[in-house]
Amino acid sequence: MGKLEIMKKVVVGIDVGGTNTEVGIVLMSGEIVARATMSTQKYGADFNAYISDLQSLIESLVSMDDDLQLMGIGIGAPNGNSREGTIEQAPNLQWIGVTPFCRILKTRFPNIPINLTNDANAAAMGEVMFGAARGYSDFVSITLGTGLGSGIISGGKLIDGHDGFAGEIGHTIVYPGGRECGCGRFGCIETYLSASGIVRTAFELMVKYKASTILSNFSFSTMTSKDVFDAAIQGDWLAREVFAKSGEILGLKLADIVATLSPRAFFVVGGVARAGDLLLKPTRESMERNLLSIYKNKVKVLPSGLPGMDVAILGAAALVMSQRVE
Amino acid sequence: MGKLEIMKKVVVGIDVGGTNTEVGIVLMSGEIVARATMSTQKYGADFNAYISDLQSLIESLVSMDDDLQLMGIGIGAPNGNSREGTIEQAPNLQWIGVTPFCRILKTRFPNIPINLTNDANAAAMGEVMFGAARGYSDFVSITLGTGLGSGIISGGKLIDGHDGFAGEIGHTIVYPGGRECGCGRFGCIETYLSASGIVRTAFELMVKYKASTILSNFSFSTMTSKDVFDAAIQGDWLAREVFAKSGEILGLKLADIVATLSPRAFFVVGGVARAGDLLLKPTRESMERNLLSIYKNKVKVLPSGLPGMDVAILGAAALVMSQRVE
Repeated sequence: MGKLEIMKKVVVGIDVGGTNTEVGIVLMSGEIVARATMSTQKYGADFNAYISDLQSLIESLVSMDDDLQLMGIGIGAPNGNSREGTIEQAPNLQWIGVTPFCRILKTRFPNIPINLTNDANAAAMGEVMFGAARGYSDFVSITLGTGLGSGIISGGKLIDGHDGFAGEIGHTIVYPGGRECGCGRFGCIETYLSASGIVRTAFELMVKYKASTILSNFSFSTMTSKDVFDAAIQGDWLAREVFAKSGEILGLKLADIVATLSPRAFFVVGGVARAGDLLLKPTRESMERNLLSIYKNKVKVLPSGLPGMDVAILGAAALVMSQRVE
Repeated sequence: MGKLEIMKKVVVGIDVGGTNTEVGIVLMSGEIVARATMSTQKYGADFNAYISDLQSLIESLVSMDDDLQLMGIGIGAPNGNSREGTIEQAPNLQWIGVTPFCRILKTRFPNIPINLTNDANAAAMGEVMFGAARGYSDFVSITLGTGLGSGIISGGKLIDGHDGFAGEIGHTIVYPGGRECGCGRFGCIETYLSASGIVRTAFELMVKYKASTILSNFSFSTMTSKDVFDAAIQGDWLAREVFAKSGEILGLKLADIVATLSPRAFFVVGGVARAGDLLLKPTRESMERNLLSIYKNKVKVLPSGLPGMDVAILGAAALVMSQRVE
């Protein structure tokens, strides 16, 4: 009688960042059984060298355990186009123009499904498969970090638009003619709710109020959103006011998203979201105040259920699992 | 040998308005072969009397031709909830609270599919089935009339949200703290781009500029958006400026919708949309100017391909056809 072999099905989740690329081996349960980091930056524009080393890294991680059966590869990347499997003009990557990431990686792994999307869409997929959105078919995931990213799930499906680029809520306007954004326009919500948006609001309030604050010792270039958070935790009035005001602005935008998509919940993830109820409480209050009456008291604003450091890898893994769950 | 009988399959499209209810018998091709109007208003809150007369009207229209085979009934109504088949707290209807329109109508027509949605969603369904959106799987229909309605099709599906109430873009904010809206809030896009919004902008510009204008002879309560349109056609500078400014504001909002949903096109319908390029040209220019670079030169802003007076009936008919096309 032969030995009963039970292969453990896994997918690879890849988080492509401007500095590093993180690779994780993920069980269907969402458990990460192995992970590694390689540089993105050191390859410069040499995409082929990067992909060759990425292939080697994936193969070595998967072969560490004979029982692992590779079922798919999911990739989350800035400006990732889920429809085309490409990365297009990502400002913090050195690959020029349109990079056919999926097509090239498929030549190295020809027999398994490979899917790519932007990091915020991946976070939404991770949230619904492994996080706090399990069982939700209509929700929006909001990532508050360097920028403001969003992933929209409606009717159980990721909304990617006609070209794979839906879900850039960070670049919708909250105050026409407001703060200058990295995208070249003015008033994007990202200029208020990203990490640097929090810092800008701290200085705006220092300009406005005479309250004494720990934050007055920082320069504009050295203050981080974490400094504002730490000050708020220490009871600094102005720092707390920064989160109150930020929540007010975010709530205004969430009310608009509700009127557009009518999701059942928002899940907030990312570095700035670590502020928790300091940010989420005023956000909920402002959203409710700004909701059209048919939507009132229906929509939740909740923290992510994903472990912070694993959001990107789990999201990328969930993306390919959702295409081919076995 | 028996005679070959060819039944003509039809659906009923119903447009429920505060004053009247319009009923049309629609062939699968989109041709309206019969239509009639009954009062909504005269029944007051007596919904059962209204439904009984509506049933009689439908039956008499369908029986006018022995060859007609009734395949379904579609209803477009203000505050229509597509998920529940209900009309909820519609401000211009006299039925209080939640009216279970579909459920009651099903008791009168037990063997055919009956679907209901709000008028703007119905317009989107009509546009994709019979109008200018044929072949489009990602677009947004914008209805500019008494209010600003919207219907969102993404990935070939009507986006209705977790509760059937998605697509109220008219009540997303364009200028926080701006004009007072009928919904009780301030700055909704509807206060700028509806028929009354056009009139408000005309007076705003008369306040601002010293240009002589035909419009200075109207009172605030008597001027209509058609008066502004007629003045613009006659070359009135201020009236033309009203449409230029309105297009600028609409374009700003459309750019936000693109960043959220990435549709391939917008289709603009309704009374105010009859202004045509007077409104749509500045709308396109403003949208392009305000688009994030990845979306530029991709998204069309087009007039509806539906005959104005038939939009509501064709939309309601398309709604039920899309559920059961035979």
